[in-house]
Amino acid sequence: MTRYEEVASVLRERIEHGLYRVGDRLPSIRAVCQELDVSISTAQEAYRQLMDASLIESRPKSGYFVLPRQVPLVLPSVSRPARRPLDISQWDQVLELVAATQRDDTRLLLGRGVPNLAYDTLKPLSKILSGLHRSNDLNGFNYDKLNGSPELRQQVARLATASGCLLHPDDIIITTGCQEALAISLRTLTQPGDVVAVDSPSFYGTMQILKANGLKALEIPTDPQTGISLEALELALEQWPIRAIQVTPTYNNPIGYTMPEARKRALFQLAQRFDVAIIEDDIYGDLAFTHPRPRTVKSFDKDGRVLLCSGFSKTVGPGLRVGWLAPGRYSDLALHMKYVSTGASATLPQLAVAEFVAKGYYERHLRYAIRQYQRQRDIMISWVQRYFPRGSGISYPQGSFLLWVELPAAVDCVSLNERLVKHAIYVAPGSLFSASGKYRQCLRLNYAFTLTPAIERAVRTVGELASEMVREARQHEVEET
Amino acid sequence: MTRYEEVASVLRERIEHGLYRVGDRLPSIRAVCQELDVSISTAQEAYRQLMDASLIESRPKSGYFVLPRQVPLVLPSVSRPARRPLDISQWDQVLELVAATQRDDTRLLLGRGVPNLAYDTLKPLSKILSGLHRSNDLNGFNYDKLNGSPELRQQVARLATASGCLLHPDDIIITTGCQEALAISLRTLTQPGDVVAVDSPSFYGTMQILKANGLKALEIPTDPQTGISLEALELALEQWPIRAIQVTPTYNNPIGYTMPEARKRALFQLAQRFDVAIIEDDIYGDLAFTHPRPRTVKSFDKDGRVLLCSGFSKTVGPGLRVGWLAPGRYSDLALHMKYVSTGASATLPQLAVAEFVAKGYYERHLRYAIRQYQRQRDIMISWVQRYFPRGSGISYPQGSFLLWVELPAAVDCVSLNERLVKHAIYVAPGSLFSASGKYRQCLRLNYAFTLTPAIERAVRTVGELASEMVREARQHEVEET
Repeated sequence: MTRYEEVASVLRERIEHGLYRVGDRLPSIRAVCQELDVSISTAQEAYRQLMDASLIESRPKSGYFVLPRQVPLVLPSVSRPARRPLDISQWDQVLELVAATQRDDTRLLLGRGVPNLAYDTLKPLSKILSGLHRSNDLNGFNYDKLNGSPELRQQVARLATASGCLLHPDDIIITTGCQEALAISLRTLTQPGDVVAVDSPSFYGTMQILKANGLKALEIPTDPQTGISLEALELALEQWPIRAIQVTPTYNNPIGYTMPEARKRALFQLAQRFDVAIIEDDIYGDLAFTHPRPRTVKSFDKDGRVLLCSGFSKTVGPGLRVGWLAPGRYSDLALHMKYVSTGASATLPQLAVAEFVAKGYYERHLRYAIRQYQRQRDIMISWVQRYFPRGSGISYPQGSFLLWVELPAAVDCVSLNERLVKHAIYVAPGSLFSASGKYRQCLRLNYAFTLTPAIERAVRTVGELASEMVREARQHEVEET
Repeated sequence: MTRYEEVASVLRERIEHGLYRVGDRLPSIRAVCQELDVSISTAQEAYRQLMDASLIESRPKSGYFVLPRQVPLVLPSVSRPARRPLDISQWDQVLELVAATQRDDTRLLLGRGVPNLAYDTLKPLSKILSGLHRSNDLNGFNYDKLNGSPELRQQVARLATASGCLLHPDDIIITTGCQEALAISLRTLTQPGDVVAVDSPSFYGTMQILKANGLKALEIPTDPQTGISLEALELALEQWPIRAIQVTPTYNNPIGYTMPEARKRALFQLAQRFDVAIIEDDIYGDLAFTHPRPRTVKSFDKDGRVLLCSGFSKTVGPGLRVGWLAPGRYSDLALHMKYVSTGASATLPQLAVAEFVAKGYYERHLRYAIRQYQRQRDIMISWVQRYFPRGSGISYPQGSFLLWVELPAAVDCVSLNERLVKHAIYVAPGSLFSASGKYRQCLRLNYAFTLTPAIERAVRTVGELASEMVREARQHEVEET
């Protein structure tokens, strides 16, 4: 972090903790310089950053003031999904999202879960790959080990310590993306017809695995700040024959919460009491705005019942398809599932990522990307506050690059997307994230983009069309009465 | 093909067709020069090649003579698997084989299904990959399309015409290796408990997919020259609720036959009559010693019931994990299965293989590799004839690089592998290729290796230990009586 970013971060925290309240005047540039022992230009740059993020404004000749947050930072207090196991639907919508690619789609895909791939800190990976291919004796075209390259598994084990996990390289299976880790985990634990408890809303990719395997989703109410409701989960475990609990407890996709450590521990204990396995999706876990990064549920795992799924798709790049799975006590069966799924994973991407991590490039890239994402989160939030209909709820993630917005009930985001077609913009409608098509008034936005004026215009267009829908609904109500 | 290889090929065909019989004197060098209009050195080199392959011998001052084939070229007339659907076993043995990698295994893996990766004709692929990484704007780290890169699908469609298939690029889904294509096909067509008819012996990778998905294998008797018995299959279709027929009709792995075109057509018609789908594994199909390559069953497909699975693992390299699936009428469901399995396949290997094919490097590499494999087949057969116990049957594949050997019944190849441990040699025991552990007296050998004296010594060791087992059994019999 540069010095001015540190200063901005200190001030931001004070605002977030209410030390400076809405409308308060902030300390003068000079006061900040003295207190934090920085130069005037550093303090000025920090204030400029906070203005960019719409956290403060400057009033001529008066100083800097804390701006009101116009909307609550959280979503409906707790989601209210159906109370019984459901078959999954929504594949058509998911297909529309995942079939779109940045490479050949002329639309602006505001809703995709792809990191920023334009940062220079990624370039060493290209160089490593290029070198591997140049120097190679063609043995890189041969199979790697079924459970993955030893070099990469060693680096993964090392990285996992940051989340409180002590894994041996042999506890890890390299997969073809985190998607394969999730698919293997579910196939390892379940038979068709089984019930799987999931946080709700929930990542559509996992939901579609349930669908493909004939599993039923029991969506558990989820708090947008603390995650899956343990009370509701306990009731569900008493009532239904749940085979596995699938959660994304850190920088949840889509709604952004991170379960507090105590609740992660309690989740593990609950699973232990009911003797059920946990599939933990930690794909966003390394993108922490705080240090150290949050612990995983796996870090509390005493008896191998947590299958931890992660990978490098959200940090390094999804097109490499390098994921991993720590399957705990299910390792034999999981390895069989890995074999029948795709055999060994591709050799060269594994070697390249291993070198990228071993040489410190990964952590350097992560530090840079995180800084950008944190800044961009605030900018994107300020745009949503400015352009979206009044009353829209917005998440406030402490990591990753996904924002969850809840619009007024009158807005159906599937229809919104249809209106956006002629503007060549695409958002991810909330119904993707539900077994039963709920959350239609919600959408997911990606703030990993380099936030250009064109993106701002797009967010504004989304907001305007949503407002139009709100007005139409109101008009309709008036006409009805 | 060089001139001398052409001459050798003409002479080999005449021998195979019985134009020159065992013990016959071949035309003199001079006569060959005149007939085929080649130089003396070319003719000499051709004769040397035939000697290398133990097809002929030179007798001083007499000329060249056709050698006897000491063993029958085929296996038991037709395999006799169990007559009812079976659960699959043998995972432990398969794991032993697939967990071994050339990269870190000190053993000589005589049984693995890996092509020769040392040929210079592969080098342009390294160069292409290296270039892609160098020039890249990092967008290669982004997702490709879910059904695969358009560039690659176009090349695959073009190549498929050689097997008589007219596919549109949109008929193709790129997969993470052929294994994923097979897994997707089976999951698309079946539910746990379903019965799948398979040729027997059969590729262990497919059998393990059956196991993982709770499917039952109905092994159909298979002729080592003409493939799956259509008569037995017809009876089975009448008797059992078969959901799919899975076959490898071209350069069958492991036993090497290619179904004649008429039988392929008849297989399709049978499937049509019973309204059942066919999963056709054509992964070895491009490695044809004859021109044009044999047609696929898919080429007779009128109503989209054939799911054709293939890829570049046996031609370009398995470590790239580039496979493909032409799922016919099942494309929607297959695409869903592809999404939940691994999402989009890795981007850069697809682009690289597409360029490798588009620029003609693939066909050049194929021509070179095929020439080597054909020569090496003959050499490997001559070694097996020389060193293996009398009475061993050997396959005579017209493509690919896998030899199937049936030893006397006294030899158990799982035990043989145990004896081979101290020689650091590993063969693929036949029981891998059966649902129920049959074919224990059979083994698969790979002749894609550059056949060095070390490999010859290894084959000799395998033969000697097998002979030892035959002697021991005979001794045991004598003692018993």
